[in-house]
Amino acid sequence: MAVFTEHFLMQDAHQNGGKIVLLVMDGLGGLPLEAGGKTELETAHTPNLDRMAAEGTTGLSIPVRAGIEPGSGPAHLSLFSYDPIKFEIGRGVLEAMGIGFELSPNDLAARGNFATAAPDGTITDRRAGRISTEECIRLAAKLQAATKDVLPGYEVFVQPVEEHRFVLVIRGEGLGGELTETDPLVTGKKPLAVTDQSGTPEGAHSAELVNRWVEKARATIADEPKANSLNLRGLAKDPGLPSFPEIYGLRAAAIAVYPMYKGVARLVGMEAIEFEGERPNHEIDALEQNWNNYDFFFIHIKKTDSYAEDGKFDAKVHEIEVVDELMPRILALKPDVVIVTGDHSTPAKLRSHSWHPVPTLLWGPRAMPDQVQTFGERACASGHMGVFHATTLMPQAMAHAGRLKRFGA
Amino acid sequence: MAVFTEHFLMQDAHQNGGKIVLLVMDGLGGLPLEAGGKTELETAHTPNLDRMAAEGTTGLSIPVRAGIEPGSGPAHLSLFSYDPIKFEIGRGVLEAMGIGFELSPNDLAARGNFATAAPDGTITDRRAGRISTEECIRLAAKLQAATKDVLPGYEVFVQPVEEHRFVLVIRGEGLGGELTETDPLVTGKKPLAVTDQSGTPEGAHSAELVNRWVEKARATIADEPKANSLNLRGLAKDPGLPSFPEIYGLRAAAIAVYPMYKGVARLVGMEAIEFEGERPNHEIDALEQNWNNYDFFFIHIKKTDSYAEDGKFDAKVHEIEVVDELMPRILALKPDVVIVTGDHSTPAKLRSHSWHPVPTLLWGPRAMPDQVQTFGERACASGHMGVFHATTLMPQAMAHAGRLKRFGA
Repeated sequence: MAVFTEHFLMQDAHQNGGKIVLLVMDGLGGLPLEAGGKTELETAHTPNLDRMAAEGTTGLSIPVRAGIEPGSGPAHLSLFSYDPIKFEIGRGVLEAMGIGFELSPNDLAARGNFATAAPDGTITDRRAGRISTEECIRLAAKLQAATKDVLPGYEVFVQPVEEHRFVLVIRGEGLGGELTETDPLVTGKKPLAVTDQSGTPEGAHSAELVNRWVEKARATIADEPKANSLNLRGLAKDPGLPSFPEIYGLRAAAIAVYPMYKGVARLVGMEAIEFEGERPNHEIDALEQNWNNYDFFFIHIKKTDSYAEDGKFDAKVHEIEVVDELMPRILALKPDVVIVTGDHSTPAKLRSHSWHPVPTLLWGPRAMPDQVQTFGERACASGHMGVFHATTLMPQAMAHAGRLKRFGA
Repeated sequence: MAVFTEHFLMQDAHQNGGKIVLLVMDGLGGLPLEAGGKTELETAHTPNLDRMAAEGTTGLSIPVRAGIEPGSGPAHLSLFSYDPIKFEIGRGVLEAMGIGFELSPNDLAARGNFATAAPDGTITDRRAGRISTEECIRLAAKLQAATKDVLPGYEVFVQPVEEHRFVLVIRGEGLGGELTETDPLVTGKKPLAVTDQSGTPEGAHSAELVNRWVEKARATIADEPKANSLNLRGLAKDPGLPSFPEIYGLRAAAIAVYPMYKGVARLVGMEAIEFEGERPNHEIDALEQNWNNYDFFFIHIKKTDSYAEDGKFDAKVHEIEVVDELMPRILALKPDVVIVTGDHSTPAKLRSHSWHPVPTLLWGPRAMPDQVQTFGERACASGHMGVFHATTLMPQAMAHAGRLKRFGA
């Protein structure tokens, strides 16, 4: 168990103890639309979450660092106690995770963007006029067929994502390095060749393979009306993160609808539970059905973030209320610790992820019932957890679940 | 003065400035026994501490890391500003310090426990029926006489502690390593041989010496009715911590009844004041008598923790009230800074140390009188120190005592 996490040596984790539920409402934190107004969470009618806040301990979570607006990958790594500054995941890996592609440790993954180029190769539209997802699917299949044998000894996978975005995965031995991107990031310039920054043999070899694939791929789509070129970004391998179940001695499950979140959970070694349906109540169904098989459950609620990114304040409020109504079903399972938080804030006012600290409650019989009586951004500022780094949530959950031995004599 | 502490370079400490009192009520933080109830500190009638909280600045202290339940050694190191994750102290060293044994840098120290064994060596009572301290003294002398020459080239010291506990110190060149313990930790098993985990020549040599001593020692007491065997735990050397008086430029004294706390204070270079009596008022007598001789006083109150470990909520409340009544005597000495805190929480409800952050007040003429009006767990959550790491207390005390120069131009 002597695996190091950001804040502690968890070699003293108990193999048994209480069950932990980590319920993440994506983009939970918000802002008032107008001066004097309330946030989405403060507006929502949440009698169950308010009671849990009153009975439990609360605080404000900083996902990455103060002032930093996190992407979904880093924000979830933090919640799982991996400091995303130390544990970087390449965009290609996240993109592959996002479409449910199961990466093996040997795989090199890249995010691909179809683009439009002038006859001399100069990029004129970095998103190929945002072609339809149907077009993307057709083009990915075309690339798959044309390039699958271009790198002898290696498997090649080209998978569509949506619009102009696709995923490239190269599978085989000896891949690695620190690879640059082909995207010149502005129009009017030619794409760049991939180079290796690591100076390793793997890096040089991988750059050569990727450049060879790009050449064949661009030739394959040269006759397309819009998507006649492409770029690769975020070339990376699975970083091989320490195992969450091993660090904490927990049988850990993820209950999420979107592939990206199952992917990040798998990346740290959790099992992603498969279930029917896409709404929060279906996720709680899955929780109930799998309650006896795991010690730790990460439940991911997506729509709070999606609505906020579309600027839909009221829809986000409603989704929070939907989750609130489900809390009694979670509590009926008699968990020892329930944490309700977000991976980051997504104020509908900003239509974007943000850096604002995230309201968080930790409920359980060993929790200090601080003076906070409701679950909201401003209320949680008076909580006993203070303004804390998200990576410390797991040790706190472990303590409250009776799963940690004393440190020192 | 350029010694590094966790949070600050103290090379800019003044050699003069105000006096600092650090009053530690062991296990101060608590929990309500029932939903809607108050903690021990919130229950206690503490007009003096409340006034100091109102006049001073307050917060919640995290002893080691969020969620981590600390032992007494690490918790006190933190209060003295040494991060216990970086500065580890073996139990044997703490025990030796606790009885006032002055360890030299070469010494290898172990905590010894007399035990009862069956004829085949199987441990039947790990505490030898908790023999009297008189018995312990007799047995230690017997071992001292019988084993002092068993390790040629090395000095051997066997000293009684109390009841079944003693200290073994081996003094000489070339000791070290990471040594395992002999205690099987359960009855019905035979003791273990000491092995070295470090893989160093010192470690292998030390393990051999210790095992040779144990063999002779067990043979020496084999005819005893109860204490016919023994175990060694926490084999370690003085970690050689940076000197607290040197870092801070303070003449530093410890006023504590229990040996352990004097020991930790000595480990960082404080002088442990000897005095008559065992109650808090005797400790304040000692403070008054030594007021002119030191700049910094660490006062340790033990019973708040002891009562809580026995589940005695009301007795802990009463001990807090006893300390509260003594505060005017401390203030009458005109200290520049008084800090009142705990080394960790010990909720009577849990009958154990816990990870909950510790209510803390810092009183003095330069302190910001935050909005907190009473001294309690929930009140302190709104204080100006926020939820802070215990290692930052000393720099804050130094600042409030006018003992730090500006950092940078």
